[in-house]
Amino acid sequence: MTSATSPSPLKIHHKSQLSPLDMPERLLLGPGPSNSNPVVVAAMNRQPIGHLDPAYLALMDEVQDLLRYVWQTSNELTLPVSGTGSAAMEATLANVVEPGDRVLVGVMGYFGHRLADMAQRYRADVKTIQKPWGNVFSLSELRSAVEEHRPKILALVHAETSTGACQPLDGVGELCREYDCLLITDMVTSLGGVPIFLDDWKIDLAYSCSQKGLSCPPGSSPFTMGERAMEKLVRRPEKVANWYLDMSLLKQYWGSDRKYHHTAPINMTYAFREGLRMLAEEGIEQSWARHKNTAEYLWTELDKLGMECHVDQEYRLAPLTTVRVPAGVEAKTVTQAMLKDHNIEIGNGLGELAGKVWRIGLMGHNSQPENVDHLVSALSQVLNK
Amino acid sequence: MTSATSPSPLKIHHKSQLSPLDMPERLLLGPGPSNSNPVVVAAMNRQPIGHLDPAYLALMDEVQDLLRYVWQTSNELTLPVSGTGSAAMEATLANVVEPGDRVLVGVMGYFGHRLADMAQRYRADVKTIQKPWGNVFSLSELRSAVEEHRPKILALVHAETSTGACQPLDGVGELCREYDCLLITDMVTSLGGVPIFLDDWKIDLAYSCSQKGLSCPPGSSPFTMGERAMEKLVRRPEKVANWYLDMSLLKQYWGSDRKYHHTAPINMTYAFREGLRMLAEEGIEQSWARHKNTAEYLWTELDKLGMECHVDQEYRLAPLTTVRVPAGVEAKTVTQAMLKDHNIEIGNGLGELAGKVWRIGLMGHNSQPENVDHLVSALSQVLNK
Repeated sequence: MTSATSPSPLKIHHKSQLSPLDMPERLLLGPGPSNSNPVVVAAMNRQPIGHLDPAYLALMDEVQDLLRYVWQTSNELTLPVSGTGSAAMEATLANVVEPGDRVLVGVMGYFGHRLADMAQRYRADVKTIQKPWGNVFSLSELRSAVEEHRPKILALVHAETSTGACQPLDGVGELCREYDCLLITDMVTSLGGVPIFLDDWKIDLAYSCSQKGLSCPPGSSPFTMGERAMEKLVRRPEKVANWYLDMSLLKQYWGSDRKYHHTAPINMTYAFREGLRMLAEEGIEQSWARHKNTAEYLWTELDKLGMECHVDQEYRLAPLTTVRVPAGVEAKTVTQAMLKDHNIEIGNGLGELAGKVWRIGLMGHNSQPENVDHLVSALSQVLNK
Repeated sequence: MTSATSPSPLKIHHKSQLSPLDMPERLLLGPGPSNSNPVVVAAMNRQPIGHLDPAYLALMDEVQDLLRYVWQTSNELTLPVSGTGSAAMEATLANVVEPGDRVLVGVMGYFGHRLADMAQRYRADVKTIQKPWGNVFSLSELRSAVEEHRPKILALVHAETSTGACQPLDGVGELCREYDCLLITDMVTSLGGVPIFLDDWKIDLAYSCSQKGLSCPPGSSPFTMGERAMEKLVRRPEKVANWYLDMSLLKQYWGSDRKYHHTAPINMTYAFREGLRMLAEEGIEQSWARHKNTAEYLWTELDKLGMECHVDQEYRLAPLTTVRVPAGVEAKTVTQAMLKDHNIEIGNGLGELAGKVWRIGLMGHNSQPENVDHLVSALSQVLNK
């Protein structure tokens, strides 16, 4: 009946009898994941159904509609990618980067570097412009770079998760159209927590994640692609160099054909739908305002503790604040004590900022003044120990 | 504070006030997803924790240990990929296919074709050998093909989900070593439900999914890679043409470095760990025997109804049976009635077998004689209407 049955007994044994899963409860105030809305978590506690079940297809439509609202876009191809935020990032590049295309990347932190790395893997001719970590590009700097490099694609990080800086996008979409260039933006840490008007800003492709501003667990990641990007995809002579993330196939599953592509992460879609529904119930503008208010409260409280934010207030992200590590303090000792003694996760610095800053996230469901109080109280205890 | 705040009001509104999520309960007896173990579903109903939290890192170790047991391998690089089975399939090819490599694919159904398509996207020189859908290759046919094409990689589908056929693998690993060729196997529908001795069979790379033999929802997918494959990865002069699935980066997160790569799908890992734990508690050999017994019971009952299985009994997969659609019956009408009137999902035929067979899965938690009774009773009612 089954092939290749072997006479050999088992050689590999599991090492221990395991108890049922028991995980600690944390208050997640780092760069993500953030705590989920309890409604979202409960939504996963049900059996999966089939990825071609009419009830699942209806759910897909709801998710697309809600996601367009959250992003303020009418792009038809707006959907969750079946993976975490980095998969949506890869999908964005994979679908529009063709071998030899010049791609200009604005690097002002870790995720700009990653964009450049990924684009190279799709055989782009990558050029970068750089800013110190924590700064942003001015429109005139971007204009000069586009004039010089004449890229087919400009890739910018709207919300740099490694630095907490928010790149202004006013005028960048117009600049890209003037030079017949596509605009890609990383909105992993901004979606849901920072005002975004995707269509007004003339952004051609964007991606995000579920575990920050959308109050879901990680595993299902927002992606959107407009008409100009779709035209480039349709015209490309070679297949997309990534089957799993190929939007020319995925649009047949998400569109009216409903043609099987891959088995969707069903329970993640349950979660995702509920996270978006709760956000729509609050109202996206109300969510932006809540993130702003909570962040401003954090900044005031940090100031009272004598702590300094790394990014100028004008460019500071509401969902994620980088705080400078005071002189003489070992950054990791503090994050470890916060987790061990207070069950609070905050993030260490990444790359150039390792050891120099902590990253404090107040994202989605966690963007509440009580969490600021809880954090500030724990942090001052740990620092004064 | 936030950049590029626009004076424009919202232009995109969500179309309807949605009620809380309410999904139908189905008995999933198609080609997957299958119903999850209730313990697994309940495990997702908790808050995520951080992907670098010591408690999460300990969970990763448990998952790797359990996965090695289920696969009967000691491969260090054995882990769940952060996506559905197709992502694990893509990871397998992405890491070892270099531009120009000759890849020989055995095509005996839909998933063989997909392997060939994916390998081409990684710029392989793809050769295929073909069998009618429902058949398998003999060892001598494989030997002739390897002798003729001298591939660097042989890719075979162990369990062809589109046909229900199980490819015998006895001697194939030895053949590949004789010709200095890597062996890749698709075990999406066999892992957990069909005897597999990965190391004894000398398989270099394999992939599977969570939503069949492992009784989990889709979204986290088994991948394993042995020493010979790792040597090819380490030697490659160019980066892997896929950042998200690059095992040279992922092994630094799953290994002792614990270096951040991407945010893991935390709640899927909770589910995955519990699915594997329940399987280890039953015992992998007991699970194989249970799948065999349940399938044999199904085949007997189908025979009583006068229905014919598409695959010869010798090569039939226990977890997935293809049944021929009787003359004069419209296949889709039956699957629709099964879902609508009985809440049972069975699968339609795919590709060459569309309209000719149904696909009946008895996988993981669902491989129980009561489900056969339930299915056969519903099917005979629908067919005799």
